[in-house]
Amino acid sequence: MDKVSIHKKYLCGVGVGPGDPKLLTLAAVETIKSADLVLAPTSAQDEPGRAEEIVRKAIGTIPVRRILFDMAKGESGIELRKSTALVAAKEIVTLLQPGERAAFLTIGDPNVFSTFNLLARSVASIDPTVEISSIPGIMAFQDLVSRSGMTLLDEEESLRLLVGLQVDDKIEEALKDSSSAVVIYKGGRNLPAIVELAKRAGRLADGWIGVKIGLEESEVTSLQNIGTGPVGYLSTIIFPPRRL
Amino acid sequence: MDKVSIHKKYLCGVGVGPGDPKLLTLAAVETIKSADLVLAPTSAQDEPGRAEEIVRKAIGTIPVRRILFDMAKGESGIELRKSTALVAAKEIVTLLQPGERAAFLTIGDPNVFSTFNLLARSVASIDPTVEISSIPGIMAFQDLVSRSGMTLLDEEESLRLLVGLQVDDKIEEALKDSSSAVVIYKGGRNLPAIVELAKRAGRLADGWIGVKIGLEESEVTSLQNIGTGPVGYLSTIIFPPRRL
Repeated sequence: MDKVSIHKKYLCGVGVGPGDPKLLTLAAVETIKSADLVLAPTSAQDEPGRAEEIVRKAIGTIPVRRILFDMAKGESGIELRKSTALVAAKEIVTLLQPGERAAFLTIGDPNVFSTFNLLARSVASIDPTVEISSIPGIMAFQDLVSRSGMTLLDEEESLRLLVGLQVDDKIEEALKDSSSAVVIYKGGRNLPAIVELAKRAGRLADGWIGVKIGLEESEVTSLQNIGTGPVGYLSTIIFPPRRL
Repeated sequence: MDKVSIHKKYLCGVGVGPGDPKLLTLAAVETIKSADLVLAPTSAQDEPGRAEEIVRKAIGTIPVRRILFDMAKGESGIELRKSTALVAAKEIVTLLQPGERAAFLTIGDPNVFSTFNLLARSVASIDPTVEISSIPGIMAFQDLVSRSGMTLLDEEESLRLLVGLQVDDKIEEALKDSSSAVVIYKGGRNLPAIVELAKRAGRLADGWIGVKIGLEESEVTSLQNIGTGPVGYLSTIIFPPRRL
């Protein structure tokens, strides 16, 4: 976002990391502070969303325009999410004046399971001249790895990052690949089934879980300590590769 | 690293990101500035390593103790890397006084293919009382995704991160899984074989490559534009999931 044309509109998806305000990058701070318009998704207009809260803690109170985003989950929610994104995109394109730059705050990384993707596509469909960019952010699993003290990847090991909304063959297959670290996002509700698969693959003892990472009540613990009931949606489960 | 005992020694692996000094986190900057000892790996004592160079650009010149690290690659190099790490670990444990905190700079994330892992294990084997922690950093592939403008993951897509030092069934299998994004690190020398596999899987047109990310001469381009010859070791190749 260095060279700014007075005719163009600019939209930058800014990853603010998983929750710890110190995990914002210098680029994120600079972009937010210099933006003409700071936007943040929220599920209720009178309440700050998580990304806004993180930024507040990091750099104090700044004027934020809250964008209502319906976080309806799963395949059944996709149409609702799309129409929400389109409404938000229209609002942003209208608000933003030529030559102005908007920063859209998003937890984690804007290109990884983020509301920014859908929003950016909607903005592009309404006004293809809007210049869209992004700033990567620390992802929840990186924070969990750091806090668990594990080595995630070394030498020629690999990683599989999966979504645990459904527990299917993919997760089972991934756990069987012992040279791969396995990261499962959004698997909280299916924790009992995931624990069972991990047990069968001989990887339960190595597993870690982060529940509500980034919130005050966040918890990072080994999978064996968490019990077997479902936990919140926003959870991250990690297995390092099996090492001898 | 908030509460410091006057008896303990502290070693923190600090991820400084892929190269852009603005991709350092606030936590990284704070930890480096407040450390009693800043350590950085280098392959030659009279030259700064990449991590040190990034930090210099981000926060100016600071006293850095360079740690000689033999970056011998592959399985044949593991013994050499281990003995190098042990020598470095001894040096660090001796240098560091009780109550002091050392920051070990490392590109990317300290828990993902980093010299920090081996070093930390060596330090722990020499002096298990040293408290070891880490600060996550932006990884090269996140920077490449951002600069290519692609959406890496959305909805229920997944990711496979692999090392391309050998081109084997794993990479072929990963590319066949069309709902998975595929990231290949260290595959520069095997670029022709990887391009061939991508072509067969129908994913060549979507592929991107970042060569020497973080260096002045870095290049981010679509895989079809790079030609078919081998490129440098430090390259990142990315395929987003196939989307209709």
